[in-house]
Formats: sequence, C-alpha cells, structure tokens
Amino acid sequence: MSETADRWAGQIRAGDVRAVARAITAIENRDPVAEELLRRVFVSTGRAQVVGITGAPGTGKSTLVDRLAAHYRRAGEEVGIIAVDPTSPYTGGAILGDRIRMQGLASDAGIFIRSMATRGFLGGLSRAAGDVALILDAAGKQHVLIETVGVGQDEVDIVRLADCTLVLLVPGMGDDIQNMKAGLMEIADIFVLNKSDREGVDRVESQLEAMLELAPERDGWKPKIVRTVASENKGVEELAVTIAEYHKHFDGTTQRQARKVEHWKRRLIRLAEEIALEQLASGPRAQASLDRLAVEVAERKKDPYAAVNELLSVAGLSKKKRQD
Amino acid sequence: MSETADRWAGQIRAGDVRAVARAITAIENRDPVAEELLRRVFVSTGRAQVVGITGAPGTGKSTLVDRLAAHYRRAGEEVGIIAVDPTSPYTGGAILGDRIRMQGLASDAGIFIRSMATRGFLGGLSRAAGDVALILDAAGKQHVLIETVGVGQDEVDIVRLADCTLVLLVPGMGDDIQNMKAGLMEIADIFVLNKSDREGVDRVESQLEAMLELAPERDGWKPKIVRTVASENKGVEELAVTIAEYHKHFDGTTQRQARKVEHWKRRLIRLAEEIALEQLASGPRAQASLDRLAVEVAERKKDPYAAVNELLSVAGLSKKKRQD
Repeated sequence: MSETADRWAGQIRAGDVRAVARAITAIENRDPVAEELLRRVFVSTGRAQVVGITGAPGTGKSTLVDRLAAHYRRAGEEVGIIAVDPTSPYTGGAILGDRIRMQGLASDAGIFIRSMATRGFLGGLSRAAGDVALILDAAGKQHVLIETVGVGQDEVDIVRLADCTLVLLVPGMGDDIQNMKAGLMEIADIFVLNKSDREGVDRVESQLEAMLELAPERDGWKPKIVRTVASENKGVEELAVTIAEYHKHFDGTTQRQARKVEHWKRRLIRLAEEIALEQLASGPRAQASLDRLAVEVAERKKDPYAAVNELLSVAGLSKKKRQD
Repeated sequence: MSETADRWAGQIRAGDVRAVARAITAIENRDPVAEELLRRVFVSTGRAQVVGITGAPGTGKSTLVDRLAAHYRRAGEEVGIIAVDPTSPYTGGAILGDRIRMQGLASDAGIFIRSMATRGFLGGLSRAAGDVALILDAAGKQHVLIETVGVGQDEVDIVRLADCTLVLLVPGMGDDIQNMKAGLMEIADIFVLNKSDREGVDRVESQLEAMLELAPERDGWKPKIVRTVASENKGVEELAVTIAEYHKHFDGTTQRQARKVEHWKRRLIRLAEEIALEQLASGPRAQASLDRLAVEVAERKKDPYAAVNELLSVAGLSKKKRQD
C-alpha cells in the first residue's frame, strides 16, 4: 500500500485531477489509504488561501462562489471549491452533486469542484472537509473556497477551517439577520451584502455598521462590508480585492501564526475525539458491549455513567480516576 | 459530597423546584456533583413522556409549547420545558432566559421552564439537554417538552432525545420545507401545521401527504398531520390527543423497548466520546502537549495524524494499532 500511496501522493502534488478526485473519494469513504495520503502530502500544504463562505439559504452563496472562482481563473490562478450541505443529515450522497450551473467552468482543469453532505450522526463532516481542503492545497490550488449554510455547530466548525470567512447577507431578510447575529459577528471577516440592488440595502448596511462599531477589532482587522450583485457579476472584483487585503494584513505577522496554531489545536482535538469514537463503536466486542449496556440502561439496571465506564474500558480507552 | 448529593437527590425526587433548578445549573456548569446526582436519580427516571418540538424560526414553536403546557396543566399534569437555542454558538448565557411571555405560567409550581444555549465548540449541548430532561423526569414531570430550532446536527441530536417528535411547518414557507424535507421526514412522528389559518395550508398539507405516501411506516406508526393556530389556542387539544395516541401506540410494545435501547446506544456513545474529549483537553500536561503539537503541525514539522497519536497517548487514551 505504501508504494501506491507514494505514487498517488506524487500525482496529487503534480495537480493530477483524477488523483485528486480519487483521494477525495477515499476521504469520504474513510478509506485507510486517505490517512496515508494526507500524511504524505501534508508537508506540501499551507500555501492555499482558504476562504469560507456562509449565509442562510437564498443568500446566493453558490452564485457568488462561482463568480469569485471565475474571477481568479481569469487571473490565471487555480481554484478548489468545496460545497458542503449539512442540513440533510440523513442523505448519504451529496445533494449538490450535479452542480449544473457550474458546467461552464467544469471543463476547466484549473478549477476543481466537490460537493459534500453529512453522513449520519457519527459526524466527521468538518474533518472530511478539512482533509479535502488539504488535498486541494497540496494539488496547488491557490484558492480553496469552502461554501456552507450558516446555521449550527457543524457549519461553524467547517467555516473555522478557513483563513478568511465571508458572511453573506441579503436585504429584506431582517429576521434572520437578528437571529444569526451573535454567531455571525464572531466569525465574519468580511460581510458580503449580496443582491444589493434590492430595496433596504442601505438600512442593512447601517445596521451592520452599528453592530461593527461595538465589535472589538481582532488582530487589527475590522470586518469589512462589500456590496455585490453576484448574479450580474457586480462587486465581485472588489470582493476579491478585499479578500486579498485581508490575507495581506495577516501575512507574515505573528497573528497569522497564532491563528494557525489555534486552528490546529481545534483540529487536533477533534481528530483525537473522532479516533476515540471510532474505537468505541467499531469491532464486534465493542458492539456487543454497547448493545448489552444500552439494554441495561434502558431498563434502569445501570446508570449511564457506570455504563460508559465499562464501555471505555472495553474499547481499550482507559479512564482517569474520578471521585465517586 | 456524597451525603449532600443523597439529600439533594431526595429533594429532586420530591419535586422541590429549587433543588431542580440548582441541579440544572450544576449540569450546565459541568459541576462534578451533577454526575453524582444523575446517577442517584436515574432509577427514578423513564416515566416522563418526552416530546421534542422542532421547526424553523418563525413557525411558532414557543407559542405552541406554551399552549400545550397550559393544556396539560389544566388536566392536572406537571410539565417541564427545555428551550434550546443552538443558533448562537458564541453566547455563554441563555438567550431565551427571560421568556417573558411565559410569565403567566411562571408562577405555577407545576411547570418548570429552562432555556439553554450552546456554549463553545466543545459541544455537549445535547448531553446537557438530555441530562436536564432526566432531572425533570425524576422530579415527577409527566410531560417534558424539548423545543429547538430544526436545522443542523446538534438539533437533530437534541430532538432525538425525545420519545415523540413534532415538526412544525407554516403555510407560505415553501422553500424552507423543500430544504428541510429530507431530514424532517426521518424524525417527524407528528407534523404540526401551525398558523393554519394562513393561505396555502391546503397545499402544504397535500404536499406533506404526498411525501408521507412514500415514507415507510416505522414500527406501525405513520406520521400524523395536525392543524393548529397556537396563538388562538386552536387545535392544541387535538394535538395533545394525537401525542397521547402516539405514546399509547408504543406503550408496552417491543418496539418501544427497541427504541429506548437505540436511544441509549446513541447517548452512551456520545457520553463516552465527550469523556474522552474532556481528558484530551484538560489538565496542564495535556494542554502543554496540545500547544506544542499544534505549533509543530502549523509549521509542517509534523503531520496531524502523528500529532494525534502523541496526544492520545499523553491523555492516557491508548490507541489501537493501525498499519502505517
């Protein structure tokens, strides 16, 4: 397997589209070879600018992402797009799989698009999205755009994979802005007022500005507001300039390094957690214990904490002493 | 601490409101005494009917929950309400804390209301909500109503704590229904068409019915549709009857037992996962290792999988052999 992985990793680093596609499939299927590949290409990562794009359904995320990608392509730069839809936790495949509107770009080898959907309660979507971003990064995409619906913890985790986060808002969705405000304030580096030809755009912008007045600067960056009409390609270039300013602001500073370290702290903890979970739920012995313990708890013969102690020890995960 | 916990557990079982409130605070603060309490009262749980209520913002969840609670109170039954808002992951406190509209009911000792919000990326909201439901159950609430916004994995986990799940829809929110359909189909036991005096209610109902035609029965229960206008208290009694029918359908059947076992399987895995995570992230030695490893990964001196191996071993969590 190692030799295959070596050759495969080489193909990814050379930007081979089919090798990249197969690697992503391996990540999605949790094929053990994916870990081998990621370990091999990891040293070639860290060069892409990873941008997260989030916003409620109907804010025009996909259109904006497409236009931004086209803009980068015109400048001769390569782009990877990861479109995540975690709102359908029960769908095995990727809903956005046939992103028909992208067909104009799909024949372009300088752009790579992949859709991902959640697969069951064991989670792992943000890990998979992060791993896919690493593959695209290693394959030489200067820009990796991660697009997701902006509600819930899963999406926040996914968005936090990015170096720079865009939050899309649309005039006339006032209630949603109120609801999402607390979470968005924290993650937005750039607010995009899309569909800005609609009525009420000035009001939304002044509301946003009022919010931003109160927000603390983070590492010397005050979130910017950019108006776009993505469907008409308006404001897209200005947005690209603002994203570039953002990256320039952080390049070479100690803040950038500190952010990267925080980023990896979160990811390492998540990864460790998932590996621990895999051990808990896999293997016939662990499964049999889980079945038996769940019955005992359901019948109130054992309390959940006692059951979990047993479960951890069966899975080979020792538990530190707690006073009881 | 044990004696205190014994006395406290006794107060909870006796339905003492202040003891219940303090226990919930202990759960929210992850105070170790919460685990002791839960272990002691667990044998007194399993009697409450736990109902999950979910739906997009604006569907009238809170009003419906209030009316349903008032209905049960008129029948002399006790009610616990847990209102969860996971859309604001960065808010430490509970947004819905001052649920003003509930003040009419708040002076009634037979009803207990608690709001909860997400607290940071370490998660644990569904665990906390599940533990709070156990406390309310032990305190003798016949009905525990868990209310949450219906998008994302967190909320799905919370809703799955319930025995019976209501999904709220409102005429005229067609797009959202389309978006949420896949997830909702799987979790809804009863669809509530709220604000059913609005235009388009017949169309929504026939769409739903068409969806349900295709859905497989689960354990002999076909999801029901109930129309309400919660703000005018219309349809609330019929809804309560349908919920009672649901519980009667499953009472004493083997399916009910099988569902309970599945429920506890999910919860035990989650709990084990969280305990493993706590060990990874707590303690000065684990923290120092995490800091160092994150730096090494950010600088590409080590790949993430190698770093996680180290992290797991420092945390005292052995990792099974993988081929490398």
